Amino acid sequence: MSTHKARLEALRRELAARRLDGFVVPISDEHMSEYVGAYAQRLQWLTGFNGSAGTAVVLADAARDPAAAIFVDGRYTLQVRDQVDGRCYTYENVPQTSVAQWLGEHAPEGARIGYDPWLHGKAWVAAARKALAGRNAELVAVDGNPVDAIWADRPAPSAAPAFVHEQRYAGQPSEAKRAAVAEWLVRQKLDSAVIAALDSIAWLLNIRGSDIDRTPVALSFVLAHADGTADLFIAQEKVTPELRAHLGNAVRIAPADGFVPALRALAGKRVAADPDNAVQAIFSLLEEAGATVVEARDPAILPKACKNLAEQAGHRAAQARDGAAVARFLHWLSVEGPGGGVDEISAAERLHQFRRETGDLRDLSFDTISGSGPNGAIVHYRVSEDTNRPLEPGSVYLVDSGGQYPDGTTDITRTVWIGPGEAPAEVKDRFTRVLKGHIALARAVFPSGTRGSQLDVLARQFLWSAGLDYQHGTGHGVGSFLSVHEGPQRIAKTGGAQGGTEQELLPGMIISNEPGYYQTGAYGIRIENLVLVEERAIPGGEGEWLGFETLTLVPIDPALVDIPLLDDGEKDWWNAYHARVLEVLGPQLDGEARQWLEQACAGIG
Amino acid sequence: MSTHKARLEALRRELAARRLDGFVVPISDEHMSEYVGAYAQRLQWLTGFNGSAGTAVVLADAARDPAAAIFVDGRYTLQVRDQVDGRCYTYENVPQTSVAQWLGEHAPEGARIGYDPWLHGKAWVAAARKALAGRNAELVAVDGNPVDAIWADRPAPSAAPAFVHEQRYAGQPSEAKRAAVAEWLVRQKLDSAVIAALDSIAWLLNIRGSDIDRTPVALSFVLAHADGTADLFIAQEKVTPELRAHLGNAVRIAPADGFVPALRALAGKRVAADPDNAVQAIFSLLEEAGATVVEARDPAILPKACKNLAEQAGHRAAQARDGAAVARFLHWLSVEGPGGGVDEISAAERLHQFRRETGDLRDLSFDTISGSGPNGAIVHYRVSEDTNRPLEPGSVYLVDSGGQYPDGTTDITRTVWIGPGEAPAEVKDRFTRVLKGHIALARAVFPSGTRGSQLDVLARQFLWSAGLDYQHGTGHGVGSFLSVHEGPQRIAKTGGAQGGTEQELLPGMIISNEPGYYQTGAYGIRIENLVLVEERAIPGGEGEWLGFETLTLVPIDPALVDIPLLDDGEKDWWNAYHARVLEVLGPQLDGEARQWLEQACAGIG
Repeated sequence: MSTHKARLEALRRELAARRLDGFVVPISDEHMSEYVGAYAQRLQWLTGFNGSAGTAVVLADAARDPAAAIFVDGRYTLQVRDQVDGRCYTYENVPQTSVAQWLGEHAPEGARIGYDPWLHGKAWVAAARKALAGRNAELVAVDGNPVDAIWADRPAPSAAPAFVHEQRYAGQPSEAKRAAVAEWLVRQKLDSAVIAALDSIAWLLNIRGSDIDRTPVALSFVLAHADGTADLFIAQEKVTPELRAHLGNAVRIAPADGFVPALRALAGKRVAADPDNAVQAIFSLLEEAGATVVEARDPAILPKACKNLAEQAGHRAAQARDGAAVARFLHWLSVEGPGGGVDEISAAERLHQFRRETGDLRDLSFDTISGSGPNGAIVHYRVSEDTNRPLEPGSVYLVDSGGQYPDGTTDITRTVWIGPGEAPAEVKDRFTRVLKGHIALARAVFPSGTRGSQLDVLARQFLWSAGLDYQHGTGHGVGSFLSVHEGPQRIAKTGGAQGGTEQELLPGMIISNEPGYYQTGAYGIRIENLVLVEERAIPGGEGEWLGFETLTLVPIDPALVDIPLLDDGEKDWWNAYHARVLEVLGPQLDGEARQWLEQACAGIG
Repeated sequence: MSTHKARLEALRRELAARRLDGFVVPISDEHMSEYVGAYAQRLQWLTGFNGSAGTAVVLADAARDPAAAIFVDGRYTLQVRDQVDGRCYTYENVPQTSVAQWLGEHAPEGARIGYDPWLHGKAWVAAARKALAGRNAELVAVDGNPVDAIWADRPAPSAAPAFVHEQRYAGQPSEAKRAAVAEWLVRQKLDSAVIAALDSIAWLLNIRGSDIDRTPVALSFVLAHADGTADLFIAQEKVTPELRAHLGNAVRIAPADGFVPALRALAGKRVAADPDNAVQAIFSLLEEAGATVVEARDPAILPKACKNLAEQAGHRAAQARDGAAVARFLHWLSVEGPGGGVDEISAAERLHQFRRETGDLRDLSFDTISGSGPNGAIVHYRVSEDTNRPLEPGSVYLVDSGGQYPDGTTDITRTVWIGPGEAPAEVKDRFTRVLKGHIALARAVFPSGTRGSQLDVLARQFLWSAGLDYQHGTGHGVGSFLSVHEGPQRIAKTGGAQGGTEQELLPGMIISNEPGYYQTGAYGIRIENLVLVEERAIPGGEGEWLGFETLTLVPIDPALVDIPLLDDGEKDWWNAYHARVLEVLGPQLDGEARQWLEQACAGIG
């Protein structure tokens, strides 16, 4: 009997012992994080599925049909079939079938379906409860996760120390940030706010950590109060003397297990909590305690998104350093690629090595997407030994990667032609349409108040005119030595799966500019730079205007450009961009890499 | 004592007699129409304000401060001060201050505030009720409008006959339309739908009328049923034998005052009503009768917006006819304008005359906006003897106008340079930016599922890059011999005052393309054509694609174009457009007008 089948059976016995008729196993943690630590990888342990998003529902009665299901989105349709035993789980696609909908159809009449209230948001709970009501079934918050009860060698949450995010990078002391939150609380006639999102905590207290891969945050919770003080709930082994000194007296440090009693002690208080960032358990505890819970956006989110001058300067320094590493990689690739000796894994490792050699890399900002030929057309591709492809001479290679540096988080995609020979006309046409869209967005000027949804078409228009498009957003926010996917802003079509397109773009926001084109089974193209929203003084202009400063500085491959398709303004942008790339990266490179850079930045006529 | 002060005092006596502490007087009718008949112009009669949108609130106690207020939007800020006595009414701006908000602040504690449930939608009633609750005050539906009780010479509603909208224009018989509505009702498990919007009734039954200026509709209500039959409630004097024959047996014709009893008779039925198009009284009557009211979009709205092939062909014929009339006008203006003898009123009258001379004009589709110099910068300008300006030689003239023809409704704006002499460089720069935006939208290709909000930036981008913008939407829907402002689609920024920007654009929709630029106190520019959403087969394209066919065919003034600012694609559009204008209008013109047209359509290099 396979491991995962045995685990499923063990879970069913555990459910039976708890008199539960089913249980829901998401990939999630107590902070609604996008990526979670190994201790919270319950779905992978139970089912074998190792994608980044998914949920299983297990019914206790193995004789039912279906008795268990696994829900993944379009990215993982194939992968889930490889990794998860179809005799144990039926495969379901989200958003076509939601977990709630499935429960409404397949939960036994009158069932008690368990869920872990520390792993789900309010909206999910409400939807599941409503769906189950149709079967007179009940959604039951468990006390302790049943998977944990049977997962003997479950890793402990990371015990890595938290550390200080220095003032020279943060630009604003935590006192000032907490004072602003306190001012907001007073204005809203609130006593306290729950800060549950790990990057919000990191921003508010100017601390960082190493508890989650790719995102430098420390597992913890915060209660911020109207008097400017805060309570930080964190495992004591994470707290160094330096951290304690940095936090000062106005931040009371308490053990992680002090959080629940602290919530209970808020009886009679008016407390803000963000339903998009705080789990159901937090709302339930506050309500049971007799606090008045006011749903409001986490007050750290907007100021965190609007980078101050120190953060902007830090980001530029990180980009210069990261850009030089990527340029060295692209030079290396121009030498090694045409020989045929490079594959997706060795390319990603070499790129990682160049970043490491900067001496300042703390982590990658996400798992590198290194896609050769048809693998480049898989938008969320993650190379493995099974899928690894050589970079064939005469093919397109797409590499989307980024680094975490103490002064900034980077995220860049370059698509390059692996010589020898000329790229096919179709590939150059598509690449040039993507490039024109990238340039149109980079050059956009727009009035204060403009939302991301309004600008999205600028990046798509040249593909659209050829009947082509890409099925992902155009831009996501990026943190400062924090999450590479940071809200609340977003440039995308309205009505898509992810929110943020109706958030006004504000000065200081960093956002990606990453149109693409994907020819399934053949190649993928994406050109991604990070840009900074900046105020623009326009002579003769009426009102307040914004534009973008392009932050990422790495050559774009001219071998893929069909130059006659560019108009004069686009050529001017290309030439000015590459002049700036050369200016910033040139002094960091020498020898053949420097020569390669000069050639790559030579400009087009 | 002034007339309007006396009327206000009479209203206060009427309110006192009814034991009401206040009353709300909107510009509205029983159908939530954008424009209303003279019988419903209660606000104008009471206060003197003759704008197209506004509301007054009158408190019964004249000693209160404030005791009455008039609410208008930004268009009417100046006009309301001219027309309405500030000693009787305080001036309020919407949306900054809503009527509900004002009531919440100024209604007497415990008051009974009256409203006419036949003139307000559900959303308004809910908001006002909520605001009044804060003062323990009540919103009371009146039985009979108190203004009508004191308005001795109030005009009767129009008794004009309704008439048949011929099959050759409608393209689809009413039976088929009613069958589609019936199918929808059956699918939704509904018995009937209330159709209250006058243009929906006109579309559903293929009838038209003459009861409201500028919009060829007949005052009536319809109940559409799941068996494909309908009840039409309409004043009997409007019903001709031809109309009766056209409607046939499946449409039962009842007197207008049969509507209320018919609603009451729907006890136990499941009835659809659209809260955006049916007044509160209809909801209240159905609920009191014991019907189950299901809120749903009026089922006529979407099919009415998507013109069938006969409606499209009719519209093209109307455009050819209307375009020739406008071209004759522009030729006339090119002769008479530079002499200085034309003014805004005489220009508008001459244009009306050219349209009349087509022999097919039934009405204008809205009051002509004829704006010379600074008056052109007033977006909703309506010329009067007081504001009338000459068209000065060496100035900009903007004319926005349209006609109602049996085969289509037109709406066109042209901005022309009144010679002699060259237009100033700034004016040409602004005009050319507007033109480039107009062309970018006209040439847009976009995937099925795209909403108007996504395309809006295409029309604004060239103004934005100079720090300029226009404070109105880019495009509104247009009816087929119906309302010149027709939902549900709209091209505009999201989050504006008017909805529809999130409606997907569908093949057959007609929408305006009308970017502009307004230099307050100096001049206004707008270039407006109507366009038709059409399917596009794109060789090599992936998925389903849409684009626009430009329907309006009238030369654009080349004297205002800074030709070097146009790129090759824009010049191609200009030349192809004018070649088409000449092809369609040329055969209709002769002599000097024909020569003028040929010159105007000569093309640019």
